[in-house]
Amino acid sequence: MNSILQSINSPQDLKGMDMASINMLAEEIRQLLVNSVSQCGGHLAANLGVVELTLALHYVYNTPTDKIIWDVGHQSYVHKILTGRQHQMPTLRQYGGISGFPKNEESEHDAYNTGHSSTSISAALGMAIARDIKKEKHSVLAVIGDGALTGGMAFEALNHAGQEDHDFTVILNDNEMSISRNVGAMSAYLNRLRTDPSYSRTKDEIETALHRIPAIGPNIARAAGRFKDMVKYLMVPGILFEELGFTYIGPVNGHNLEELIQVLTNAAKMKGPVFIHVITQKGRGYAPALEKPDVFHGIGPFDINTGQQPRKSVKTYTEIFGEFMLNRAAIDPRVIAITAAMASGTGLAPFARQYPDRFFDVGICEPHAVTLAAGMARAGLRPVVAIYSTFLQRAYDQIVQDVALQNLPVILAIDRAGLVGEDGATHHGVFDLSYLRSIPNLTVMAPADENELIKMFNTAFTISGPVAIRYPRGIGQGAAATDEEETIPIGQAKILATGDDLAVIGIGRGVSFARDLVQLAAEYNISATLVDARFVKPIDKPCIKSIAQKCGRIVTIEDNVLQGGFGSTVLEILQEEGLPSQILRAGIPDEFVEHGRVDILFDYLDMNAEALLEKVINRWPELVNNSAGWELLKFGES
Amino acid sequence: MNSILQSINSPQDLKGMDMASINMLAEEIRQLLVNSVSQCGGHLAANLGVVELTLALHYVYNTPTDKIIWDVGHQSYVHKILTGRQHQMPTLRQYGGISGFPKNEESEHDAYNTGHSSTSISAALGMAIARDIKKEKHSVLAVIGDGALTGGMAFEALNHAGQEDHDFTVILNDNEMSISRNVGAMSAYLNRLRTDPSYSRTKDEIETALHRIPAIGPNIARAAGRFKDMVKYLMVPGILFEELGFTYIGPVNGHNLEELIQVLTNAAKMKGPVFIHVITQKGRGYAPALEKPDVFHGIGPFDINTGQQPRKSVKTYTEIFGEFMLNRAAIDPRVIAITAAMASGTGLAPFARQYPDRFFDVGICEPHAVTLAAGMARAGLRPVVAIYSTFLQRAYDQIVQDVALQNLPVILAIDRAGLVGEDGATHHGVFDLSYLRSIPNLTVMAPADENELIKMFNTAFTISGPVAIRYPRGIGQGAAATDEEETIPIGQAKILATGDDLAVIGIGRGVSFARDLVQLAAEYNISATLVDARFVKPIDKPCIKSIAQKCGRIVTIEDNVLQGGFGSTVLEILQEEGLPSQILRAGIPDEFVEHGRVDILFDYLDMNAEALLEKVINRWPELVNNSAGWELLKFGES
Repeated sequence: MNSILQSINSPQDLKGMDMASINMLAEEIRQLLVNSVSQCGGHLAANLGVVELTLALHYVYNTPTDKIIWDVGHQSYVHKILTGRQHQMPTLRQYGGISGFPKNEESEHDAYNTGHSSTSISAALGMAIARDIKKEKHSVLAVIGDGALTGGMAFEALNHAGQEDHDFTVILNDNEMSISRNVGAMSAYLNRLRTDPSYSRTKDEIETALHRIPAIGPNIARAAGRFKDMVKYLMVPGILFEELGFTYIGPVNGHNLEELIQVLTNAAKMKGPVFIHVITQKGRGYAPALEKPDVFHGIGPFDINTGQQPRKSVKTYTEIFGEFMLNRAAIDPRVIAITAAMASGTGLAPFARQYPDRFFDVGICEPHAVTLAAGMARAGLRPVVAIYSTFLQRAYDQIVQDVALQNLPVILAIDRAGLVGEDGATHHGVFDLSYLRSIPNLTVMAPADENELIKMFNTAFTISGPVAIRYPRGIGQGAAATDEEETIPIGQAKILATGDDLAVIGIGRGVSFARDLVQLAAEYNISATLVDARFVKPIDKPCIKSIAQKCGRIVTIEDNVLQGGFGSTVLEILQEEGLPSQILRAGIPDEFVEHGRVDILFDYLDMNAEALLEKVINRWPELVNNSAGWELLKFGES
Repeated sequence: MNSILQSINSPQDLKGMDMASINMLAEEIRQLLVNSVSQCGGHLAANLGVVELTLALHYVYNTPTDKIIWDVGHQSYVHKILTGRQHQMPTLRQYGGISGFPKNEESEHDAYNTGHSSTSISAALGMAIARDIKKEKHSVLAVIGDGALTGGMAFEALNHAGQEDHDFTVILNDNEMSISRNVGAMSAYLNRLRTDPSYSRTKDEIETALHRIPAIGPNIARAAGRFKDMVKYLMVPGILFEELGFTYIGPVNGHNLEELIQVLTNAAKMKGPVFIHVITQKGRGYAPALEKPDVFHGIGPFDINTGQQPRKSVKTYTEIFGEFMLNRAAIDPRVIAITAAMASGTGLAPFARQYPDRFFDVGICEPHAVTLAAGMARAGLRPVVAIYSTFLQRAYDQIVQDVALQNLPVILAIDRAGLVGEDGATHHGVFDLSYLRSIPNLTVMAPADENELIKMFNTAFTISGPVAIRYPRGIGQGAAATDEEETIPIGQAKILATGDDLAVIGIGRGVSFARDLVQLAAEYNISATLVDARFVKPIDKPCIKSIAQKCGRIVTIEDNVLQGGFGSTVLEILQEEGLPSQILRAGIPDEFVEHGRVDILFDYLDMNAEALLEKVINRWPELVNNSAGWELLKFGES
């Protein structure tokens, strides 16, 4: 078993291999993928779909000299397996193990790091231009999914590339899905290319045409120019890409190795920008993933035989939000749900089924999603835009310009805020409090538990301007359900316990760290006030003033970067009020945090009760009356 | 003179007017435009181009019931003139006067506020969906330029709209220019539509077809469907928009009122998304603007007869940057300049002429511009991306993900940072320090004068990671030229004067306010240390530590929002170092600042020496030994 795969130490080992062997290798790779992801979690379906495409790419091209840029990058596992990392697959996405995304730091075969969608054509064009300016010779390729192609910056790049006329290849990995089923006119267009018999009729003609490319010689450029015109004529189906200046080739069967290799080999000799349309099947070769490609898009560990994941005993914030939206929509016809290819991920799938006319999945188009909501809000609706924190970064300008500047009642439901764990640096949502709180007119909240999540959304609907609510990935605190209609006073924190020595004020997930810290501190006879801040903006000035005056020592805890984050807001208030309180801020430091289980990452960042208490006592040694007890704690840690 | 215009108090006054009168009105409006903008400055060329189009829109549609969304919005002057604001044109863009952009707060005819490019289709779709959900009846139109159409979010919106099938109209105002001449394959495509004789041949056929639309009745939907197919067949030239799900009509002569009115009247009856391609001429009717549409895009006051602007005696930061780039490119072949339709505005026009192969204007595509640069940097080049601060907000995610996370040596040249003046709230670049400083790996600088600008760019090229340098609009301080190769130590502030009572630390334009404050304070026997911070990140901790210890009172001054800005960084350092210094932070408060001359705006924000000194003395009354003198100051102010 895995006998061929074991002989593959680098892509060079593929060269000259016969088709039968490569097809067997493909099956071995599929087994490794299913095994690894069943243990580590990860993006299974997408990788099962690109096994043959990745093999063909490495058969025809020579990385690291040739540059392959994987758009989004969650489909790069096969590439990792072929470029010397097959034995690290059991460490996939684990702390200290290999990343689930391309990482130049991990391998020189990873030409460009990705994680967010639709960047590959821009980056590939940049690398192709650099190659030509430096007079180097190599190929540059972007592999982009049909979902990512709907992202506006992919179009910006296609439009620019079509004019620049540098040699490079865009491979459209068309599996009719992004995270869930695709949307938009582009998707309908691609579907026509795939299915219209008059289009596929021409495929044989293309192949014949491709065979006519002269191998190499002084006339190649001129011949390629003629050839391009010929292909253009044949390829009316790809007219949209042709009009943008690309030579369109396709559709190509993405699971036929021979066809793929032939097309790629010939395309490698063509001049100017080339667009190859490859049809693949997400989840291919593993029945559970084929049946439910959205579930197997990004998945935790699962049972290989059944495809079942372990059941959760506690609901996620995402599920609670989804239920809230169903309830709210039932009583308020103005409520609209908008997402950007994250219908399942944001918990909106039930809403989409129950209220299809009030649900809008706009594809991977965060900027459009936010401005669409602004238009709706201007016209009297109450849109809720549900997007992951890290992807909402794409719509920063639209939040400023379209939503906040017009003071429109758009509600931003920001899922996956803070550390997300195994997806790593590209996916942690640790900047949102910093970039949101500097925007005028915006109300910014973060719940300490799922109960508060509901109250905050109830509250959001009472506010006439824009509101952002950010909450973490994964299960909540198991808090008991709230009264469905309960709201909270705007800008008011909640004091959970009172003490005199110091005040610990947490926001969002920071509240549970704060609670743990206060409990542990009590064991050392340190009496602390515990505050759930609830609002980053408007922040509860009277509360901060009172705890500053009472305790004189304040600890802030957040799962956002410390630069300009929640703790920084508290500093600003103390400064404005002229309060001489001393502060300790805990949160994400000024670095990109790698992948790994969230609890491991928090430990690495000293975000746990023991490490926080140590910092408290180092900052304020006078708090420890019982120094023996403190020594005991330090001893227990080492 | 202006006899017809004087009778136009609302768009209703246009209805039923004969064509000859409307054409005369058009000329009167052109005169008013040239007069107003010659005195107030503004966007002249674009407005001269849309006179007939705006007249036709208000002739056919009924605002405010029908909604017209002006993309970018700087072409809305004619609309303002027709909707009751002609007599306010002399106050255009002045503090307290009417805005140069649509403002719902100013008139109910301004359906949606704009300022940044490419948002109109998203917003219009949102409003069309809202209308249909609320079962209202009115038209929704987006008027978008061909430059704005290259922005990715316009494509996201077209792609989504083509699927949604709500009735609304996109009017492409195609003047072959955005701010400067357009780029990209889309532009070439539109050019073919405009010029290919086989395309214009079909225009008569369309018109015949349009006349066949039944006026109204039960069969209208079915008839419109048939009509749409027919038009589609005729309109192969617009296939790109057709493939995206729109009915394409055009090209239409944008200066022929009769033709425009006819097309709009008929299009208003069509179902689903309609795309009308209108050809206009930027600057039409005023020779200097016709000859130099890029100069007359956004212009200050000028002489009506000659079109000449008053000459500046001091160079702008923009010009100094442009000269730097020329010099640097001459000695370093890796240097590349990238901009997003701001070649003239960022001072790169000379670079573009001298180094056409190393200059890339990607169109209004900030996200693509930044990731293109990341690709180039990954491949060994040294790209400099020159974008206005407010527009760089569009690329926030790309700065985080593509540039900073990969720690690539991309230099961001951020022009128009801080308050920009007459363009107002949509264009002030007052968030950049807040959103940039929370990003790991990034070095963030702001020069106090043009000399420091050069030193900072020199320094940027010595740094192996990403660098952002932000500098204001307009003329510099008139500082003497620096030694071309001089750099500054990374992360080091500069102490300009020393005193014991307090320390005033400015960043960027804040340094000149700081200098004025220190001088004025000296008159009241207050002795102050004056610091030019130079770096926001990494900030000079030893310097802040030393001034905190020496003076105990610190004033920070910046032209960025106070939330999470430069002063907030200083607070964070003092907290981390446990320094009990007292701080006063001056900067932009938590509100959107309106339009007006920069000096007026700063006065409004209490950003001048007198107001700052008053705050200092209110905060630290113990500083005033001579209370009579202080009373004198207060008296002098009132």
